[in-house]
Amino acid sequence: MGLPQSRPDLISLAAGFTDNAVLPSDLIREAFEGLRREDPGLGYLQYGSTHGRPLLRELCLSHLAACPGERLDDLTAEQVLITNGSQQALYLATQSLCDPGDLVLVEDPTYFVYLSLLQSLQVRAVGMPTDADGGVDREALSGILSGLKQEGVLHRVKAVYLMGYYSNPSSRCLSLEAKRGVAEVLQLHDCRAAVIEDAAYRDLHHGNSHGVPSVLSMPCFDGFPRLYLGTFTKPLATGLKVGYAVSTDRKWLEKLLFIKGNQDFGTAHFNQAIVEWILANGRYLPLLAGLSRHYGAKATLLDQVLEHSGIRAAGWHWQKPDGGLLFWLRGPEDCSTAMGASLARACLDRGVVYVPGHFCFASAAPDHFIRLSIGAACADKLNLAASRFCEAVLSQ
Amino acid sequence: MGLPQSRPDLISLAAGFTDNAVLPSDLIREAFEGLRREDPGLGYLQYGSTHGRPLLRELCLSHLAACPGERLDDLTAEQVLITNGSQQALYLATQSLCDPGDLVLVEDPTYFVYLSLLQSLQVRAVGMPTDADGGVDREALSGILSGLKQEGVLHRVKAVYLMGYYSNPSSRCLSLEAKRGVAEVLQLHDCRAAVIEDAAYRDLHHGNSHGVPSVLSMPCFDGFPRLYLGTFTKPLATGLKVGYAVSTDRKWLEKLLFIKGNQDFGTAHFNQAIVEWILANGRYLPLLAGLSRHYGAKATLLDQVLEHSGIRAAGWHWQKPDGGLLFWLRGPEDCSTAMGASLARACLDRGVVYVPGHFCFASAAPDHFIRLSIGAACADKLNLAASRFCEAVLSQ
Repeated sequence: MGLPQSRPDLISLAAGFTDNAVLPSDLIREAFEGLRREDPGLGYLQYGSTHGRPLLRELCLSHLAACPGERLDDLTAEQVLITNGSQQALYLATQSLCDPGDLVLVEDPTYFVYLSLLQSLQVRAVGMPTDADGGVDREALSGILSGLKQEGVLHRVKAVYLMGYYSNPSSRCLSLEAKRGVAEVLQLHDCRAAVIEDAAYRDLHHGNSHGVPSVLSMPCFDGFPRLYLGTFTKPLATGLKVGYAVSTDRKWLEKLLFIKGNQDFGTAHFNQAIVEWILANGRYLPLLAGLSRHYGAKATLLDQVLEHSGIRAAGWHWQKPDGGLLFWLRGPEDCSTAMGASLARACLDRGVVYVPGHFCFASAAPDHFIRLSIGAACADKLNLAASRFCEAVLSQ
Repeated sequence: MGLPQSRPDLISLAAGFTDNAVLPSDLIREAFEGLRREDPGLGYLQYGSTHGRPLLRELCLSHLAACPGERLDDLTAEQVLITNGSQQALYLATQSLCDPGDLVLVEDPTYFVYLSLLQSLQVRAVGMPTDADGGVDREALSGILSGLKQEGVLHRVKAVYLMGYYSNPSSRCLSLEAKRGVAEVLQLHDCRAAVIEDAAYRDLHHGNSHGVPSVLSMPCFDGFPRLYLGTFTKPLATGLKVGYAVSTDRKWLEKLLFIKGNQDFGTAHFNQAIVEWILANGRYLPLLAGLSRHYGAKATLLDQVLEHSGIRAAGWHWQKPDGGLLFWLRGPEDCSTAMGASLARACLDRGVVYVPGHFCFASAAPDHFIRLSIGAACADKLNLAASRFCEAVLSQ
């Protein structure tokens, strides 16, 4: 986990790992035994196609269609592509859309690995202001698009990247109104960029699934090519790394397939077969129910430690997330959370590390935010690490 | 396998699949059970690093170092990167080296998927003439480099792509002299392009491993950045898709790691752990010994059917391969093997398909070559398909 070996006492609330305690080794064994029984010809250990196993693609689509508010009757399993986690889908999507110098609109804050990905492809990230309640500031977005038009680069906006469900890092969901707002402002400016919705944490709600449908099901996005990214990496097993992308646009999908064909010929077929077996045998939803309880309890624990510590009175704000693995904390404006600054050192002295929030911003990055993860640490360690963190905050 | 469903009688000698009969499902189960016993904390189902499991990287290097002629004392496991099969390593290597308009030298014939990969990155493939005995025509190569210099594009040659062991499609190995020749001619022309050696089939010899070391161990390549690509996909299980790349150049490796980090964060950790367990427990070499017998027998079978059919008298030439899964046949110069031509139709009528050789050439593509695979079809089907093929040839 990248922690110094000389500090075995350190607890990381930074890493995006899931909790080993809920990794379903028994279920994966059951799936493997099931495959051995049902496919004695061993097809599950042979190459598959670049596109992915047909039944798995169908099951991904059915799973998605059963989420609240979705209306996906127009989509078929042909429009689903199996990927090496949603990260690969994100890479393929961006590579297929963008040339160096192109622009992508992202929420501010957004997934920092995506910012690095964009930079590696020499694509400029343009931040869209969002708020903690799931809103997108329409006027600000409109102003940004006007600015890009004036700069003469509006036509180079090739994609809009949205995280509608328990976003990384802020764990907030986008409201129906916010998504509609994005579509309307884009249309107003005659910008028909592709829309990528990354729903990596959608299945990891802590009790009630967020009721807003994806951009695939929202008529206001009808004129936009759309790609929805789902994954079994976080909810099922990080070590299997199977994700999927659903596209409304067949030509775009063909491009993704072509690039993936050159990159790897298709996701490891064994892993696809294991996930397919788990879905086909109705074992995924019960697993999710367990995860919901598990991570929900950890979220409550962290929230309580933070709440009881008194850091709110010291100017710190957060909302307990309803899903996902992340807490997003805003400190006083004059408090730097950067790695070299006093707070980070105080945390390190006490044996806890976090992700400084400024990594997550495309635009002028405020440095008084912090991302904490409830993923990897067990309850005892989470408790201890949170106490250390609060002590460090209060020492400032 | 892409065959028309309406033709269940068709047998494909085209697909690059391995033989399901030798896919080691029991061994993989044993590895999984071993991991469950030895790592009760379930680390093997968690994320790994982009670089790959340290022990697996060490074991890859030890395996490589034990191959005939290798001297790898200067290399460490830090210089090994675990990839999604060798295909991903090939993509990363090319992406990290080349801009659109750059050039890569390839053997003629070469791996046709690599030609497609180059095309997708807008990189021009330049063919180097080779012969069936593992030679590279030095004079011709020198002439090609002179030509590129005259064109003013010699400095845009960013890589040389070699398949030293049982090449796809021709199954010939490069001799020591041939590899040395490439190094010397490049040096003569002051061309210090990176050298990529793709050894995907090296472990799949049919009895005796080819005695020539890789470019990593040849002093004549000392001045060149080199990347060696190995894989467990073909020899262990196509469905696991675990490969590795070994680089002599740390800066290049850093670039590969950076791109892979953006593309997928690392190869599925579960699959890495399974391969690691198999290597660490001394189970890989016995598996290879079995594969050697299995594919050796299939090669003998196909060779005999071809030999007894009389197609040699009709102007067809081939050498029985000493490793790999492919036969490379040269027909009479006036015989087109292209998909629409008479021979392909005659084969299809009789229920057998092959890969037309012209796909495998970078330069002016002769169309009287054919690639046949001994991988997927069982002995009976291979026998039947080969007889159909010979009958079609003799009908021309």
